[in-house]
Amino acid sequence: MGQTNRLTQQIAFIIEIDRLKQILRQTYISDQSRPENTAEHSWHIALMATVLIEYAPPGTDLLHATKMLLIHDIVEIDAGDTFAFDELGNQNKAEREEQAAERLFGLLPPNQGRELRSLWNEFEAQQTPTAQFAAALDRIQPFFLNQQNQGGTWRKYGITSDRVVERMRPVKAGAPALWSMVEEAIEDCVAAGYLEA
Amino acid sequence: MGQTNRLTQQIAFIIEIDRLKQILRQTYISDQSRPENTAEHSWHIALMATVLIEYAPPGTDLLHATKMLLIHDIVEIDAGDTFAFDELGNQNKAEREEQAAERLFGLLPPNQGRELRSLWNEFEAQQTPTAQFAAALDRIQPFFLNQQNQGGTWRKYGITSDRVVERMRPVKAGAPALWSMVEEAIEDCVAAGYLEA
Repeated sequence: MGQTNRLTQQIAFIIEIDRLKQILRQTYISDQSRPENTAEHSWHIALMATVLIEYAPPGTDLLHATKMLLIHDIVEIDAGDTFAFDELGNQNKAEREEQAAERLFGLLPPNQGRELRSLWNEFEAQQTPTAQFAAALDRIQPFFLNQQNQGGTWRKYGITSDRVVERMRPVKAGAPALWSMVEEAIEDCVAAGYLEA
Repeated sequence: MGQTNRLTQQIAFIIEIDRLKQILRQTYISDQSRPENTAEHSWHIALMATVLIEYAPPGTDLLHATKMLLIHDIVEIDAGDTFAFDELGNQNKAEREEQAAERLFGLLPPNQGRELRSLWNEFEAQQTPTAQFAAALDRIQPFFLNQQNQGGTWRKYGITSDRVVERMRPVKAGAPALWSMVEEAIEDCVAAGYLEA
C-alpha cells in the first residue's frame, strides 16, 4: 500500500546489488590486509573518473562514464570475478556475464533496466570514447594497487612485464595522455623487482 | 620526467583514498558476514542516486550528487566513522572532519582540491536540493541494511523507532516522495521486532 510497484522493483535492485561487496578480486587493498572487493573497486574507479577526466578522449561524458563505472561489474554477483590472467576462466566469461546482466538489470523497472543494460553493453563493446575512458581507469586502478603492494598479484602469479603492457593497452585509447605515465611506471616496477622483465 | 606535477598530485590522492576501504561502519553488509566499509557504502549510495533520481527535489543535479556521494565520507580516512547514535563522538566530529578535509583535498592540484572541497562543504551545509538528496540516500542505505539484517545495529544498541524516525528526517527534504515508504518500513520493522517501539 502506498509503495508503487516501480519503487518496489528499485528497492529490490538496490538490496540485491549489496552482494557485490562479497565478490573478491585478486588485487589486495593498499595496506595488503585483504583482497579488494568489487564494490569498493567500483567506488575507487568512479571517483578516479572525476579526478582524471581531463585526460579522457574528446567526446567523453563524465556522468555517463561514472554511471558506467558504478555498474560495469555488477554482473559479477552471479558470474564471479574472472582474474585477468586466467585464460580458462575467460573463455566462457562473456556468456556467464550476459546471463547475469539479464537477471540483474531485469530487477529494475523496464525503462531503467534498459538504460543501465545499455550502459553495460556500451562498456563491453568498447566503441565509444566514454567506454574507452572507463576501461582505461578499470586497468589503471589495479595497476596502482599492485605497484603499491610491491608487485601484488604480479609476483604471486609470476606475471611478466609484456603481459602487463598488453593488459594496460586500453589506456592508449581511453586516456592517451596517461600512456607515458603507465610506461614509465611499468619500467619502475621492473627495476624495483615488482614485475619480471 | 614526463609526468607532470599535476598528475603526480592526482595519483597521490587516488592512492591515499584507497584507505577508505579500511574504515569500518557500524552497519553490516546484507549477508551479515562483516561490517560494511565506507568505500563500498559510498559506491552503493552513488549508484542509488542514479536509480532514485526521479524522487529528488527539483533542481537536483545528478552528476553533482553522484560526485558528492563518492567523496562525502573520505574525511573518515583521518577522522574515522562516527556512529550515528554515538552522542559523545558526535561532539567533536565536525572539527576532526574539517582537518581531514584540509589534508585530503589538499593532496590534489589546487583547482581540483577546491572543487571537491566545495562539494564536501555543500553536502555538510545541507542547503541545496542536491545536498539534501544526497543526504537522504546516505540515510536510506543503512536503513535498508538494518532492515535486511533483522534489525542489525538497531537491535545491537537497543535503538527505538522514534530515534530512527528522527535519523531519517532528511529524507523528507531530500527525497520527499520516498517519505511514506520510509514511514511504512519503520512500522514494518517495529511489527517484525527489528526495532523497539
